[in-house]
Amino acid sequence: MTFPITKPTLLLDEQKCKANIRRMAEKAKRSNVEFRPHFKTHQSLEIGSWFRSEGVTKITVSSVDMAWYFARGGWTDITIAFPVNILEIEAIDKLAASVTLNVLLEAPDTTQLLDAKLKHTVNAFIKINIGNNRAGLEPDKVEDISAVIEQISRSRHIAFKGFLGHAGNSYACRNKEEILKVHTASTSQLLELKDHFKDDYPNLLLSVGDTPTCSVAEDFSMVDEIRPGVFVFFDAIMLNITCCTQRDIATTIACPIVAIHKEKNEIIIYGGRVHFASDIFTQSNGSQIFGYIVENSDNGWGNLCDGVFVKKISQEHGMITAPKEFIESVSVGDLIKVIPNHICTAANLFTHYTTLDGKRISRFRF
Amino acid sequence: MTFPITKPTLLLDEQKCKANIRRMAEKAKRSNVEFRPHFKTHQSLEIGSWFRSEGVTKITVSSVDMAWYFARGGWTDITIAFPVNILEIEAIDKLAASVTLNVLLEAPDTTQLLDAKLKHTVNAFIKINIGNNRAGLEPDKVEDISAVIEQISRSRHIAFKGFLGHAGNSYACRNKEEILKVHTASTSQLLELKDHFKDDYPNLLLSVGDTPTCSVAEDFSMVDEIRPGVFVFFDAIMLNITCCTQRDIATTIACPIVAIHKEKNEIIIYGGRVHFASDIFTQSNGSQIFGYIVENSDNGWGNLCDGVFVKKISQEHGMITAPKEFIESVSVGDLIKVIPNHICTAANLFTHYTTLDGKRISRFRF
Repeated sequence: MTFPITKPTLLLDEQKCKANIRRMAEKAKRSNVEFRPHFKTHQSLEIGSWFRSEGVTKITVSSVDMAWYFARGGWTDITIAFPVNILEIEAIDKLAASVTLNVLLEAPDTTQLLDAKLKHTVNAFIKINIGNNRAGLEPDKVEDISAVIEQISRSRHIAFKGFLGHAGNSYACRNKEEILKVHTASTSQLLELKDHFKDDYPNLLLSVGDTPTCSVAEDFSMVDEIRPGVFVFFDAIMLNITCCTQRDIATTIACPIVAIHKEKNEIIIYGGRVHFASDIFTQSNGSQIFGYIVENSDNGWGNLCDGVFVKKISQEHGMITAPKEFIESVSVGDLIKVIPNHICTAANLFTHYTTLDGKRISRFRF
Repeated sequence: MTFPITKPTLLLDEQKCKANIRRMAEKAKRSNVEFRPHFKTHQSLEIGSWFRSEGVTKITVSSVDMAWYFARGGWTDITIAFPVNILEIEAIDKLAASVTLNVLLEAPDTTQLLDAKLKHTVNAFIKINIGNNRAGLEPDKVEDISAVIEQISRSRHIAFKGFLGHAGNSYACRNKEEILKVHTASTSQLLELKDHFKDDYPNLLLSVGDTPTCSVAEDFSMVDEIRPGVFVFFDAIMLNITCCTQRDIATTIACPIVAIHKEKNEIIIYGGRVHFASDIFTQSNGSQIFGYIVENSDNGWGNLCDGVFVKKISQEHGMITAPKEFIESVSVGDLIKVIPNHICTAANLFTHYTTLDGKRISRFRF
């Protein structure tokens, strides 16, 4: 890279990112399902346009503000994959005037309030807890689900679209077999529900989409759409749980070395919690890390450096532990490239990406 | 509070914050030490002006960018409490043209490079590792320290000021006794160094300053300045380790309730990793939390709600666990006020504070 970097910089390998997008778009096509990628990871109109080049016209976001940002950027079919916040109904209603807006419902009182305050029509998915144990109705509580569907049916401005789930428990898996089990279990729960309701609602849709199952599984033909997000860049956690290879990781954070403590095999970098976020990953050996280090190369970065990790972080400092040979090979002022544990929260700390030829790509911070 | 809140909002109780500032300023005066507060916690010119009202004229920051921000806001004596990053010497030099700038040195090669490139004079503290085991020279390696001092003495543009340490190991304490032990141990290490070098450098200064020791200890007369930062707001970790009372906590994040799962004693709020940051606190019973919940009150917030915690977070979701009575007392659309674990990283995720009368106070995001 030929442009100057003087402080922590979020680097983006455009080719790897575009390849990740293409691979997922092709997988969706092979299963004949809608590819409705989650844009919460990149939060960038320009990166969004790379999805459009792969035929994507429908997207997922995680907040009303993010929906507005992408709607202003020309996206016209948006799912807000977050339970409707009744304090934002006015903003939801205004947005529904100009785009096809899909929202998530699970609470009967929210459904009622939403309908009472809407002037425009929104589509609604009922959020089902398919294993993540966060939001959503339990898949075996068919009466609770029926009650919300009936309430939607009686509404003036809400159209029932189907069931949506997020098998986020896949992040706790440690290998492909475990991830495939989550895929089977989570989609089976939605399929049983569809079977239960199909006579009354023959067109109901099933929507799933965490990056682990979408990266590892091949067949999604049992559902109607997938909504992965992290795959656009991948990160240390995705690499650890076998959802990508080293070559797929499209973002690193370049950080200057500010001190080297040879006697402790430690390097201090300018790069900390306000650059990588504070997300911890516990490795199989029990040690906790805040990111991996990759080799520098003329054009971006190469492979992981064996045994080199970010082991401790403060607000601006990162402490790297490394074998003696690595320590001997670097100097104060060199750049260290870090793969953060969780790219969604790390990228959220930057206002822009820098491509390998030094171009800035802006992203929205909410 | 009478102004509308519809999404996660960083609230600031101006009176509590000003009282925290006044209390620390008075403590510094009683010990007759310089109060050079760390501004990395609030990162706000307006909050900075509240320190000025207490007589503060010298400040600490954690990056060159932050130094520039406060210099543009009229601060003229600034310590960048981070090892000099040689890739930013140009920006350091330009800043040193207009303000009294104090930097941290520990590496001989950095010292040499800095002097070679500077056109203006900077003051330098040598960073000593007084227990935090992050950056700095070991206090017992007197020869290493002498080598850097001598290099500074031979420099054209660097003036040696003294020794600076950060006893960040105080954050791992769990009670006042442990914190006082850290205070004694860390200041003793600096005092021994001063004793060693006092014949050659009779005016050398000692600078310390983590919030735990500065909050708990009373006597700082053995050093020359204190640099605490977090005390301006306090947070869940500071409360846990007995550095403040509930009444001192000056910031909370107001978050709308979007779902209530009565059968699981859980509440889902709009508020997650991009609002509280991902910092974990492990309680003495071994459970990990992401923040406490306080009672709502007409003007701000009241006491902690017993047994109510943020127990899990995603990018935008927070999951709260609470006793049955609490669950029964709230509704979808109510606001929950969260005390984040670590206010420095949480506040860093917002562009502004909102005071209890609805006024916005901007802060810089780097």
